[in-house]
Amino acid sequence: MYKIIVKSNKKSFEIIAIQGQNLLEQLREAHVAINSPCNGNGTCGKCKVKILSGYLPDASQNEAKVLGTKAIEAGYRLSCSYNIQSDIEILLEDGSSQAQILTEGRQRSIELLPIVTKENITVEKPSLSCQTADFERAIGGDFKDSFPNMQLIRMIPEIIRQNDYNISLIKMGTQLLGVEAGDTSKTLYGVAIDVGTTTLVSYLIDLTTGKRLCVHSLLNPQKIFGADVISRIKHTMDTDAGLEEMQSLIINEVNNCIEAMCEETNISRTSIYAVTFVGNTTMMHFLLRVSAKYIGSAPFIPSVTSMLNLNVKELGIDINPFGIACILPAVSAYIGADTVGAVLSTGIYEQEEISLLIDIGTNGEIVLGNKDNLYACSSAAGPAFEGANIRNGIGGVKGAINSISLQSGIKFTTIGDVSPIGICGTGIVDGIAQMLDVGLIDETGRLDMKWKPTTNEQTNIAQNIVVIDKMNALVISGDIAITQKDIRELQNAKAAIAAGINVLVKQSGISFDDIKNVYLAGGFGTYIDIDSALQIGLIPSELKGKIQSVGNAAGQGAIEGLVSLESLSQANIISKKIKYVELSSSKDFNDFYIDCMMFE
Amino acid sequence: MYKIIVKSNKKSFEIIAIQGQNLLEQLREAHVAINSPCNGNGTCGKCKVKILSGYLPDASQNEAKVLGTKAIEAGYRLSCSYNIQSDIEILLEDGSSQAQILTEGRQRSIELLPIVTKENITVEKPSLSCQTADFERAIGGDFKDSFPNMQLIRMIPEIIRQNDYNISLIKMGTQLLGVEAGDTSKTLYGVAIDVGTTTLVSYLIDLTTGKRLCVHSLLNPQKIFGADVISRIKHTMDTDAGLEEMQSLIINEVNNCIEAMCEETNISRTSIYAVTFVGNTTMMHFLLRVSAKYIGSAPFIPSVTSMLNLNVKELGIDINPFGIACILPAVSAYIGADTVGAVLSTGIYEQEEISLLIDIGTNGEIVLGNKDNLYACSSAAGPAFEGANIRNGIGGVKGAINSISLQSGIKFTTIGDVSPIGICGTGIVDGIAQMLDVGLIDETGRLDMKWKPTTNEQTNIAQNIVVIDKMNALVISGDIAITQKDIRELQNAKAAIAAGINVLVKQSGISFDDIKNVYLAGGFGTYIDIDSALQIGLIPSELKGKIQSVGNAAGQGAIEGLVSLESLSQANIISKKIKYVELSSSKDFNDFYIDCMMFE
Repeated sequence: MYKIIVKSNKKSFEIIAIQGQNLLEQLREAHVAINSPCNGNGTCGKCKVKILSGYLPDASQNEAKVLGTKAIEAGYRLSCSYNIQSDIEILLEDGSSQAQILTEGRQRSIELLPIVTKENITVEKPSLSCQTADFERAIGGDFKDSFPNMQLIRMIPEIIRQNDYNISLIKMGTQLLGVEAGDTSKTLYGVAIDVGTTTLVSYLIDLTTGKRLCVHSLLNPQKIFGADVISRIKHTMDTDAGLEEMQSLIINEVNNCIEAMCEETNISRTSIYAVTFVGNTTMMHFLLRVSAKYIGSAPFIPSVTSMLNLNVKELGIDINPFGIACILPAVSAYIGADTVGAVLSTGIYEQEEISLLIDIGTNGEIVLGNKDNLYACSSAAGPAFEGANIRNGIGGVKGAINSISLQSGIKFTTIGDVSPIGICGTGIVDGIAQMLDVGLIDETGRLDMKWKPTTNEQTNIAQNIVVIDKMNALVISGDIAITQKDIRELQNAKAAIAAGINVLVKQSGISFDDIKNVYLAGGFGTYIDIDSALQIGLIPSELKGKIQSVGNAAGQGAIEGLVSLESLSQANIISKKIKYVELSSSKDFNDFYIDCMMFE
Repeated sequence: MYKIIVKSNKKSFEIIAIQGQNLLEQLREAHVAINSPCNGNGTCGKCKVKILSGYLPDASQNEAKVLGTKAIEAGYRLSCSYNIQSDIEILLEDGSSQAQILTEGRQRSIELLPIVTKENITVEKPSLSCQTADFERAIGGDFKDSFPNMQLIRMIPEIIRQNDYNISLIKMGTQLLGVEAGDTSKTLYGVAIDVGTTTLVSYLIDLTTGKRLCVHSLLNPQKIFGADVISRIKHTMDTDAGLEEMQSLIINEVNNCIEAMCEETNISRTSIYAVTFVGNTTMMHFLLRVSAKYIGSAPFIPSVTSMLNLNVKELGIDINPFGIACILPAVSAYIGADTVGAVLSTGIYEQEEISLLIDIGTNGEIVLGNKDNLYACSSAAGPAFEGANIRNGIGGVKGAINSISLQSGIKFTTIGDVSPIGICGTGIVDGIAQMLDVGLIDETGRLDMKWKPTTNEQTNIAQNIVVIDKMNALVISGDIAITQKDIRELQNAKAAIAAGINVLVKQSGISFDDIKNVYLAGGFGTYIDIDSALQIGLIPSELKGKIQSVGNAAGQGAIEGLVSLESLSQANIISKKIKYVELSSSKDFNDFYIDCMMFE
């Protein structure tokens, strides 16, 4: 067994491989979505990695041709041509830096036992000495489940005879979902979907291999009824068909995601038999067209939190009509299936070590604990981290300023390296962290209009301190500025998260020292500069050095639910294990919130 | 444990009770529908029984008042005031002789554990310290069944709050079917339906007591597509929407039956939560809109035979929309749920003694065996016993001649004692048996045109021997006659049944001597004159003295499925235990058939 340390874009993780295994295959198995358009034929050169240490074979003639002498000398090799012979350290090539890693923080080894399976069988032909009915012939015995799918029973007599009694059975556990004529057992797909308040992320998975084939993201179209869940719940209560409207908006977009992924991969929707969903409790209620009315006000009661399996037709999802939708379980009104999914995929529920999981979206869900105990709370950070309520705030889209430095004048980067059109959450955090760093903001959050530069390079910073809409502000570029109000918004948001962390630490009796790992999840958590997050006090400074980003851990939980029945059953256990700490009735929370408002 | 011998209207059976138990309650538990309008308060006097032997306590003051001195002296007591202290023998009072005993032939003691139950509970009110979701609050835990009813989940938040968290849960086993606000646990009904090729019989049952409230019969409207199943299957194959048509005809009539019973008893459809169905396999396929195409020709393969539970909405049955329909299991294409129901209700599957069950409808299903083995076959008797293909044949309706005697001239009775309009099956059997008896027909079945009366009383018989449509015939009354062709039809029909019996006896290795009980089931079986059936050779003469009618044993099986989950599970066992003997490939059957054609 060899250890492969994989380095990429500021991230690093390990995978384990056996002598002689192909590197590309191992990276794919570890869900590293490395580019390989030629599918391992050694012709495209996109799967190259830099071997930083360990076995470095001479380059093959082909590698020399595809990669060029310079790259070969620098230690680059094609991962498709590389067989593992020692512990190695590799750098994922920047050219393939779209290479997104599904579980970016922790590596989990999951046995492939998908939520739905396909099996090819040939049943005995009917005769006077074998008069078993068609349905029972297909399922190999009596029907013992709860309610049968009559449509399926109606189709079986023709399907079973179509290919001379050779059929493929699609099952969930022991329950028959569908029957296809002939051997179709090689084509079986699933979709995992994370329904966020702001964004919908979907993954297409090959359920015969567990491989991720494709990712697709869209904005949640419900945003026209408000950026936060409360506004949307209000809409469903104020409008007669509001809830139906919410459902159809999200279902349409789910179908759009699925359509886009099927087009990209050229697979047929009818070979998709399962969709798993995670999302906050309100989003799951809307998806199910279940009233979220009592989620909106104390004592915050959801309609349903159990894991639910539904026929996709019931939801109107366009995959195989015999397919199922599985909604992962939630804990409470504000600890949803997304948090359960994130706890699942980070594996903190099975570790001896104590971990802190922070999933920051519109709400910040925080989970603290280990295999023995899990405490969770949800802190209403508001949508500031997603760019809302910020003067020039936008989501993490092309043209969003996503990092700011004031170390040598005002410098920034944008997503896609294009002209800036606004600032996303990570940019705001970066900008304010930098303003604190250079003393432009004091510990109360006041933007100092009289701030004086100490170096020549800082001159343009001073020039950019202006008054906009009667508020102090720092212009970053053109019309784009960070205002005093933006700073206040961020103070509120970060105070909410930091206070939530403090309450959990206090109520669980766990000390900051006991916490060994801090996982930052969610789109925001993935891209945030960890130093900036510490600088503004979003994360208590005691946790410095323990923090890592884990990407869309919730979405990864949905994928796990798709590829592993064991993970689904763990999700159920997790949902019951988590002790929910209600912050709205917590005096501690208010005290911490006020404390955490300051920058210090 | 004491033995209670209950005598009533020509029937007698035993129930077992424990010392001190209340007699009325025990009678109710044994499904004896005894009148008790005051519900056991001792005021109405309707539940009186005569204690024939055993413990006879002094009458209470109240009993003396309600029943009067005469009745008290005669041994009458109120069963609601009587506690069991010894073995007793009682006579059910004739005044309460509507007291119908559910199982008319054999008495079976069944524990009341209905297919659906209702339970009234008050759940904890939501609060910040009890934030359980509404659905999980109502079901008292997590949802663990297969697929939830989303409509139910959607309604629960309002229902649960409507009556201050007091709700009634409707369950099938542990599975939640419905929730009602407040305490409605006293009103829960079920319907049992026997879908025959010719007739639909439905029963309304109070599931809180097991009492039969009402019966309703209608003709199967599918008869417009043929009297036999083969013609109807052909229609579903020849016509595009033929199967849909068959289903909607039967569902409409089921709904008509239910409506009529609800009107008669003044109960609401929404308090009916379960319908059980028995019927031959083809009728069950039509009911379910499942293709019966492969039932129609060798090797006779049904689409489905398992017991199925469906949401009634799926079938379009107008009871509570959260209610269920349970289709009892079948054995094969021609041994349907009706036969399984009859085996269940006659209890032959649990007896040491060997019994023969003959259920004669369009097809004659015959079952032979005991608790160890059960053999069954289906013999195509054709519809002669139901009056079809008989010149003046009609069903068992008002005005049908149902018995004929030629002992002192031509005498007959009609159903409803009105002028005759035709002859039903029992009338034909009686008529031909009498014609044999007086020598008007010889053993080959030839009607002797030269027959001479031996007594004066028989003169009018001789006068009534005529030629109609070029056939010899005996006029019974006015235009109504039994023709030579009718005799041939009956010969075919009785030969089919008798040959089936002989095949089963031969193949099972059971001798006629071993058979201790013969149960005649079905409408025809109930009303037929047993001596006539023996006379024409419908039942082998070896079985004389062992024969009893058991009424609609199939329908009774449907009722048992409604009131007893244990019976439902027995039905499943029975359906697998029965060894189906296929007659179409049996040389024995052909030989016996030819033998049995003769009258001897």
